[in-house]
Amino acid sequence: MPKDTITPRSKDYAQWYLDVIAQAELADYAPVRGCMVIRPTGYAIWERIQKALDERIKATGHQNAYFPLFVPMSFLTKEADHVDGFAPEVAVVTHGGGEELAEPLVVRPTSEAIIGPSFANWIHSWRDLPLLINQWANVVRWEMRPRLFLRTTEFLWQEGHTAHATEEEAEEEALTILHEVYADFAEKVLAIPVIKGIKTDREKFAGALRTYCIEAMMQDGRALQAGTSHNLGQNFARAFDIKYQTTENREEYVWTTSWGVSTRLIGALIMSHSDDEGLVCPPALAPIQIVVVPVYKGDTERTTVLEAIERIIAGWEGRFRVKLDDRDQLTPGYKFNEWESKGVPVRVEVGPRDVEKGTVAVARRDVPGKAGKEFVPQEGLVDRLATLLEDIQSSLYARALAYRDERTHDVTSFEELKEAVEHGFARAYWAGSSDDEAAVQAETRATVRAIPLEQPERTGTCVSTGRPTSRIAIFGRSY
Amino acid sequence: MPKDTITPRSKDYAQWYLDVIAQAELADYAPVRGCMVIRPTGYAIWERIQKALDERIKATGHQNAYFPLFVPMSFLTKEADHVDGFAPEVAVVTHGGGEELAEPLVVRPTSEAIIGPSFANWIHSWRDLPLLINQWANVVRWEMRPRLFLRTTEFLWQEGHTAHATEEEAEEEALTILHEVYADFAEKVLAIPVIKGIKTDREKFAGALRTYCIEAMMQDGRALQAGTSHNLGQNFARAFDIKYQTTENREEYVWTTSWGVSTRLIGALIMSHSDDEGLVCPPALAPIQIVVVPVYKGDTERTTVLEAIERIIAGWEGRFRVKLDDRDQLTPGYKFNEWESKGVPVRVEVGPRDVEKGTVAVARRDVPGKAGKEFVPQEGLVDRLATLLEDIQSSLYARALAYRDERTHDVTSFEELKEAVEHGFARAYWAGSSDDEAAVQAETRATVRAIPLEQPERTGTCVSTGRPTSRIAIFGRSY
Repeated sequence: MPKDTITPRSKDYAQWYLDVIAQAELADYAPVRGCMVIRPTGYAIWERIQKALDERIKATGHQNAYFPLFVPMSFLTKEADHVDGFAPEVAVVTHGGGEELAEPLVVRPTSEAIIGPSFANWIHSWRDLPLLINQWANVVRWEMRPRLFLRTTEFLWQEGHTAHATEEEAEEEALTILHEVYADFAEKVLAIPVIKGIKTDREKFAGALRTYCIEAMMQDGRALQAGTSHNLGQNFARAFDIKYQTTENREEYVWTTSWGVSTRLIGALIMSHSDDEGLVCPPALAPIQIVVVPVYKGDTERTTVLEAIERIIAGWEGRFRVKLDDRDQLTPGYKFNEWESKGVPVRVEVGPRDVEKGTVAVARRDVPGKAGKEFVPQEGLVDRLATLLEDIQSSLYARALAYRDERTHDVTSFEELKEAVEHGFARAYWAGSSDDEAAVQAETRATVRAIPLEQPERTGTCVSTGRPTSRIAIFGRSY
Repeated sequence: MPKDTITPRSKDYAQWYLDVIAQAELADYAPVRGCMVIRPTGYAIWERIQKALDERIKATGHQNAYFPLFVPMSFLTKEADHVDGFAPEVAVVTHGGGEELAEPLVVRPTSEAIIGPSFANWIHSWRDLPLLINQWANVVRWEMRPRLFLRTTEFLWQEGHTAHATEEEAEEEALTILHEVYADFAEKVLAIPVIKGIKTDREKFAGALRTYCIEAMMQDGRALQAGTSHNLGQNFARAFDIKYQTTENREEYVWTTSWGVSTRLIGALIMSHSDDEGLVCPPALAPIQIVVVPVYKGDTERTTVLEAIERIIAGWEGRFRVKLDDRDQLTPGYKFNEWESKGVPVRVEVGPRDVEKGTVAVARRDVPGKAGKEFVPQEGLVDRLATLLEDIQSSLYARALAYRDERTHDVTSFEELKEAVEHGFARAYWAGSSDDEAAVQAETRATVRAIPLEQPERTGTCVSTGRPTSRIAIFGRSY
């Protein structure tokens, strides 16, 4: 694993991204077009993402369930906007068990259309509401320009699906997920600052009333939609006849929501924090938080050093996620490079001199080279490491936030907007239509990434139409 | 949820099985032929199964990864026996992204054929071995006679795939999984006694050298294959050109294994312990171990009782998995029935009299009715409940083991075998061929479920061929 195989970011950001993935052994392209193989290092990150999200999803009252992979074609077509949005992207099973099927089955691109009939069966009265369900699953959307983690034909995700008695409750649910699950997770665990906003009609989910999103800025200034939460109104309830009896014995359609995040978050992670040495993983997420590397020559030193390490790390279990790299045939330098490229937040080195002096060397991944390395006493090491991990976590967040703020510009003219989205986000008053938005995109390759939920209390002039408006939008080029 | 909708086991075992699933809300048939919807109560059980297995899989040195859902048809055909075994059962994607595909894609029925190319890429030298990978995934095998959990077109499972330098290491791996992962899990968590054995050639995995299995007896005397572990020899290494450089710089094919258990285990769970009241879940597995039901009339009693419960269960978190059922609109009797049908091992009832007297009522699910209920002091309750949960766990195992032993008969003639498999297992000396085995099946509907790894040190006469042999086989009718 020679280190110089990572292309510098400054030279070619897209190639750098692929090199980081290859070097950290996160994923490979599969021999099936558009699909990926998630390798153990990458999957361990996904497991950590799953755990942190699953805890938040359950803490907000949801239960996991599992619905079929296959959706009969006729189900997908029940909601008109939904089928328009997804039909061009689906994979279709036409044969099963050696025979041609009477009705083709679609491999789920999302599960509203197969969950609908179950909800219709399960929900009878107001007592059955709210129904709060989540599913961890694979989905398939045919991808013409695949890119590892960001756009793959098959990807892994969670999709929440809920049903409520009133529009207000559905709206509250969609926003709870946005704030308490997605934004909280992105900011506290991934250390990625996100803009919480609403999508324009042009960008919303096929079949939704309103789509809320968390939107992040990558290191190249481009936007990445990191999660979406949809208030589906009664659209799917009507399409799948999901009704309930009210406390006054009337029959009403329920109000539903759906919401999801996917393995795309691993792409967001890579492009938020990593550097030319490879992946940088925030401690709250990292499958391995601290790697301990013994430094020795010969068997006597080896024994001394490994005995000292055993003593030093006794009691770390349950406190930190630790890996002792005691592989014999590899040099310390090789190991340093490997764990650096895999993003482990902290490296502890122990050599014979450290054993003598009661010290260890501690290197923090977010500050490369000598600046990030210091020799510290073994005494009090646990507390020092705990503080260091917290510091790395908050530093990564602060750095990403400062970067985003630097690259976000208030613009008042179309020319300024065009200039701003070359390197980041443009913040502009916006009162345009979907057509106006399309015109902006044709000219600048940028779209409205979000109408932020937090809006200024002033008014201004729409950057496109010149109309007065109090609404600010964030424009950016997106992944 | 009226209780009398569970058909008694004595009347119709197959209907009882479906009634238990419906009553406990474990799963539904989906509107897609052969597929199921796993409902929250059922999925919570699957999550507990996943957790217990995943811990064991990781403790034995394996890492999780994820491979594509789709397998190009040409890959599946690379191993001759493998394609013969699986081709008739596959679902085939012929269209994607609005176009007909140049090569059809098979929805994975198992992943050897899509993992092979990755292993060939990742493995170069002996240093890369052993490669120990596991995947949690959905798979599809077209099912003509679906049965919830036991045989569904789509099911969830884990599939382990490993590569080794030598035949001995592959064999050791296959057996480690059988003993330390599958049998240990089945016996300690599911409380299901299993026979560890090897499959005959007729019953082994398509493409395997040897298939090991754990085999359980259900309450109707039929056998259920609960997990399999395959030594694949060099068959897949040859088919996918998976080679490594030995320490002596020779190129050799690796030796591979694969092994899996699935949502079928939930079927095994149901048919091992449950009764005419519904599901019985062993405490080590149960998503909810103890349900606490307040018993009161009117608001004053309600307050008194709920305050007492709050005091009683303080400190239970982290010790037990507890549910407080404080739903207001339902009677205690309704709640008792619901949690009984869902298999919760222990119910604690607290009423106003209990509050006065410092007692609670404790009912154990595995002993229905009054016999399983007692009033005990609140003092020392935690230790008492911990002991009770352990007792239920071991009682369920002992009961299932005694049942299996009662229904397993040593047979020396074909007539005895035929009689024995009507109600359970037949244990017989066996030296027959695959054709002999087919003849037995045609006559008795029973097959060799396993050649147990533990064999007697005596010899006898083959029940079919009359040849002398030291090999004992277990015959049974199977799910």
